[in-house]
Amino acid sequence: MTALPRIRDVGEFGLIAALNSVLPHSARVNGRVTLGIGDDAAIWAPTSGTTSVITTDTLIEGRHFRLDWTDWRSLGHKMLAVNLSDIASMGAMPVLATITLGLTGDEHVADLEELYRGAVALAEPHDVAIAGGDVVRTTGPIVLSVTVVGEGEPLLRRDGAQPGDRLVVSGTLGASAAGLRLLETPDIGQGATTADLLVGAHLRPNPRIALGKVLARYGATAAMDLSDGLLGDLPKLLAASGVGARLDSRLVPVIPAVRALFPIHWLELALRGGEDYELLATVRPDALEETQREAAHVGATLTEIGEIVASPVGQSMLMITDAEGVTKAVPEGAFDHFG
Amino acid sequence: MTALPRIRDVGEFGLIAALNSVLPHSARVNGRVTLGIGDDAAIWAPTSGTTSVITTDTLIEGRHFRLDWTDWRSLGHKMLAVNLSDIASMGAMPVLATITLGLTGDEHVADLEELYRGAVALAEPHDVAIAGGDVVRTTGPIVLSVTVVGEGEPLLRRDGAQPGDRLVVSGTLGASAAGLRLLETPDIGQGATTADLLVGAHLRPNPRIALGKVLARYGATAAMDLSDGLLGDLPKLLAASGVGARLDSRLVPVIPAVRALFPIHWLELALRGGEDYELLATVRPDALEETQREAAHVGATLTEIGEIVASPVGQSMLMITDAEGVTKAVPEGAFDHFG
Repeated sequence: MTALPRIRDVGEFGLIAALNSVLPHSARVNGRVTLGIGDDAAIWAPTSGTTSVITTDTLIEGRHFRLDWTDWRSLGHKMLAVNLSDIASMGAMPVLATITLGLTGDEHVADLEELYRGAVALAEPHDVAIAGGDVVRTTGPIVLSVTVVGEGEPLLRRDGAQPGDRLVVSGTLGASAAGLRLLETPDIGQGATTADLLVGAHLRPNPRIALGKVLARYGATAAMDLSDGLLGDLPKLLAASGVGARLDSRLVPVIPAVRALFPIHWLELALRGGEDYELLATVRPDALEETQREAAHVGATLTEIGEIVASPVGQSMLMITDAEGVTKAVPEGAFDHFG
Repeated sequence: MTALPRIRDVGEFGLIAALNSVLPHSARVNGRVTLGIGDDAAIWAPTSGTTSVITTDTLIEGRHFRLDWTDWRSLGHKMLAVNLSDIASMGAMPVLATITLGLTGDEHVADLEELYRGAVALAEPHDVAIAGGDVVRTTGPIVLSVTVVGEGEPLLRRDGAQPGDRLVVSGTLGASAAGLRLLETPDIGQGATTADLLVGAHLRPNPRIALGKVLARYGATAAMDLSDGLLGDLPKLLAASGVGARLDSRLVPVIPAVRALFPIHWLELALRGGEDYELLATVRPDALEETQREAAHVGATLTEIGEIVASPVGQSMLMITDAEGVTKAVPEGAFDHFG
């Protein structure tokens, strides 16, 4: 029996050759990217009449992922998906991605190929070229850093929300956080046919690219993607726009599987769980119906969960109505990654 | 006495606020970047009639830098400079940079501010906006990952060298590697007034942006920047172009300080040392003189060190003439970071 080759066995250039072999030509260049991996930089032609956007997100082993919880292909999907979600929240279409791998050399070459297959499987349907990157050696933990460039016109920002706008959220919230709990405490989901669904929501989030484009075209005044939980992220949008909001927690969409497996904590998971990668947006009241209809055409639901109000003086910018119909101020402060 | 605050004391948002405070408005947005740090992505307007380029480079503590050898401000310069050098080698002008920091939380806030000051001091004269990034927590080593977008027309690639072209290199080679040796073995440089010059070449390389633009406009057929040493990088250009080269080592420009402090190894440092971040280019013979003249106008020298020949069959693609005038084949294979 031959042991599976590790990166230290094949070296940097062997790894790059292996990764290139799982990148079909169509995933390296596209109509806009004319020079991909292999030069000092990648070259692309921006589409005339549009503006460009760039975002970057990094996953650290042990902090953002655990190799005993995720397969490598799902990890490749996720490292790209979290960046595509940022592009979607701007109402832009992704053009290219660069991928930086910080590796110890102990990893199996076949695992890194799986990582790339996961990224390619998400990139290809969105016509995103994997245009370059960097491979560096580290003593660990593993570092996966992805940058994505997109473009579009018009684009969405966080700072355009106006009093009177309706607050909407795509899909449902809490499934990713519920999936993470199941990974942490497998006993909870034992025997539940929905456990895989929830774990899948955590490991392979679905970036809302088509929906972001719909929001940019129809009536949305501001948008962002939900990575730190609704109550962690919404205050950022409110602060950027200089407004307040009233949020009715009874309207927050949560799938039955989350309620069933977490009968006590399901609302907490939906409000604070994080990593949903759904879009949060504000929409002019007169545009709400049309925007929801257009969202349905790209397979997305947009649920109204509250409204934007004028910037409050001397009180919390966010008021939330709880399950009993009681409205309270939400304490300020998002999740702090060093807290 | 109060201890200097560490990142874990001020948290993620405290760090971001501190870094923003050392980024002047002019370093966050510019004529093209209209939305910088603070949204899901940065927005910029590509210049009509140009194409865009993107490159990314990552520095890992202990592997690419040591905190007992570099000050934080130099490190901030270098993490941006190595990326700007890639942009320069494409003949492009840089537009924006994103910076990702992987930190343990133990670092002093003041040190990270110094890192940003070093980046800003290099970014501002080149009108490069620091447009975004990511801060993530790691157990260490520290990770510094920078991505730079540039644009221009025409652009330079590695694959355009033709037989008969002259091989030229900017500046001088070996000073950075000599500086690294002095850091490793301080005894060598003791008392030498030139030690600081060499160490500075290693810690604060100078990206050749204006020269790259000159090369793209006048006669260069291919270019790349030198990070892995002349004998490590030149074969990559030759392979991309499908040509061979004859290199005369007696013509390679080396400053007297390198020869004086390393009387035995100076040529080895110049040929294989790495991290010079000078530009290597191929130039049509009839364009050589004008290109050298225009290079001088932007303060750069271009030294002819060899010529491109037709792709050899059954022999090394690179022949080198040594100090004794003897010509030999160079063994294939660049420096392998996992080797």
